[in-house]
Amino acid sequence: MTPVADGVAMTLDALRGLAREKLRGAGLAPDHADAVAETMVAGERDGCASHGIYRLLIAANSVARGVVVPDAVPVVRSPASALVKVDGGGGFAQLAFERGKPLLIERARTCGIAAMAINHVVHFAALWPEVEALAQAGLVALAFTPSHAWVAPAGGTKPVFGTNPIAFGWPRPGCDPFVFDFATSAVARGEIELHRRADRPVPEDWGYDPQGRSTTDAAAVLNGAMRTFGGHKGSALAAMVELIAGPLIGDMTSAESIRADGGRGGSPIGGELVIAIDPAGFLGDAVADHLARAEAMFAAIEGQGARLPSARRYAARAESLRDGVVIPRALHDDIMALRSG
Amino acid sequence: MTPVADGVAMTLDALRGLAREKLRGAGLAPDHADAVAETMVAGERDGCASHGIYRLLIAANSVARGVVVPDAVPVVRSPASALVKVDGGGGFAQLAFERGKPLLIERARTCGIAAMAINHVVHFAALWPEVEALAQAGLVALAFTPSHAWVAPAGGTKPVFGTNPIAFGWPRPGCDPFVFDFATSAVARGEIELHRRADRPVPEDWGYDPQGRSTTDAAAVLNGAMRTFGGHKGSALAAMVELIAGPLIGDMTSAESIRADGGRGGSPIGGELVIAIDPAGFLGDAVADHLARAEAMFAAIEGQGARLPSARRYAARAESLRDGVVIPRALHDDIMALRSG
Repeated sequence: MTPVADGVAMTLDALRGLAREKLRGAGLAPDHADAVAETMVAGERDGCASHGIYRLLIAANSVARGVVVPDAVPVVRSPASALVKVDGGGGFAQLAFERGKPLLIERARTCGIAAMAINHVVHFAALWPEVEALAQAGLVALAFTPSHAWVAPAGGTKPVFGTNPIAFGWPRPGCDPFVFDFATSAVARGEIELHRRADRPVPEDWGYDPQGRSTTDAAAVLNGAMRTFGGHKGSALAAMVELIAGPLIGDMTSAESIRADGGRGGSPIGGELVIAIDPAGFLGDAVADHLARAEAMFAAIEGQGARLPSARRYAARAESLRDGVVIPRALHDDIMALRSG
Repeated sequence: MTPVADGVAMTLDALRGLAREKLRGAGLAPDHADAVAETMVAGERDGCASHGIYRLLIAANSVARGVVVPDAVPVVRSPASALVKVDGGGGFAQLAFERGKPLLIERARTCGIAAMAINHVVHFAALWPEVEALAQAGLVALAFTPSHAWVAPAGGTKPVFGTNPIAFGWPRPGCDPFVFDFATSAVARGEIELHRRADRPVPEDWGYDPQGRSTTDAAAVLNGAMRTFGGHKGSALAAMVELIAGPLIGDMTSAESIRADGGRGGSPIGGELVIAIDPAGFLGDAVADHLARAEAMFAAIEGQGARLPSARRYAARAESLRDGVVIPRALHDDIMALRSG
């Protein structure tokens, strides 16, 4: 750890070691600590500070307050030939995904398409590491998860939906996968939180106050309801995420998750749906030819100066792999103050 | 056919009969004529005039100009246990979907999830009739199709994507399925066409002129590029539709489709991906309990005065089933002028 002007420079290996140590210190079982650390290091490495090592504090807090089962043992089973179901036992989602992934990949390759339900887990991370991992394995992947009911449907002003992200991964031979991962809410909830802390007004189209009126008061939106992105279309997608990653897999909707939280302010508890498709299923031995046609589309996007959704993350990654990362000093201090395991 | 003030009143059965007769007269084989007629009647019945009987003229024109193979025989096969692949042989998409549907339903029930690629078909209809049919069979359904390259990616101004609709269906016990179907473009292309005909300006955020400048000139947008809905999120979804209903299933991207059209102005030619999931796969004998939890979410949406995506269509349907429909006189005259089969 080298002190630099505005923070502490660390290699990714050193960061991983620190994260593992502190997550174990917080009481997480070693396999959970390792899986969670990997996700946080990936976020920090890719320049996503909000999903980076900062989440260590949130994770430690979730363990301390009993929101998460720190030594849950995920149980993987297959209720049908193209389905995988992982009971996460109330633990963090990462280990449950890791434990189910090999069977999901195997079933997608055997059946052509497969779906994995991850049930009864605590979510606090982005979905892109999961679809990226599947795309790295050569599969096309989709992932969905509800959160807490914070978002109003189009035409309404009361929260029903979570921020309900949709993530997608597409394998690209010889280069990083095409990946996107976005909330179906107009903005991330953390963005509104930052405005509240800075006492800055938010744009009127971000949300409603508890009385259902448009407002520029960030605190009022946090207590009222956020809006979906893209009007009725974003609202329809948010509803879809609730349904397919909630009732379809026998897990909580965002409304049920926030009720279960009972005001503790914990991370969303519930499920996640992951769908994986093997290109070889439809394409046989012509996979390479057809993936090349996808590359032509990417070239048409980048050739006019537009950016692919994952481009900024991959650029940050290349830099971090070469130079390491710099952790803001205050955050580093907070992390160092946590007990080590 | 009863003349009324502004058009011709018809029962749905009479409309179906007329559509079949005129589609056969246009040269479509009887099984294609029946399948296409059913889609048009459904559009008219549900108050979607732009996807209603008006499309008869477009379909007849597509046959006359050799864009579609009028007597194509769809070939259904299963390249993997959870995959169905229908070669539409250059015919309209409807019959290919109908022919593949029973096997898709069977595989979804056996494997838990299944995907169907419909290849080498001409598209001119909405996707909701297909996801609704699957939801009526108790399955959760998703459908995607590219179109012609008319839409610019976020950050660019040149067309790469089609209007690339996404459709979703969810079964609701004892009532019509929850269904949505929307273009990932900011508006439907037909909407811009209507502005052009009426010589009305379009909002600046609908598209770009051929030089890549924002414009309010509808004709310039039609010759330039439309925008996606929802900024970079809608753009990411449009890219996903291109990939999973194009290269993934060995079929054309929107850029390839418009190149293949070669300026004839025909309907998009290419493929479609349909995914079907059996709720019983994950839920076993608890399906009813979990579908009831979805109903609680719908109630939370409707209880605050917001509308479900399909509500307007179902209201129009109830009225049409009771009272029939009224076809605008000019359209009726144009249809009657077509040869009968």
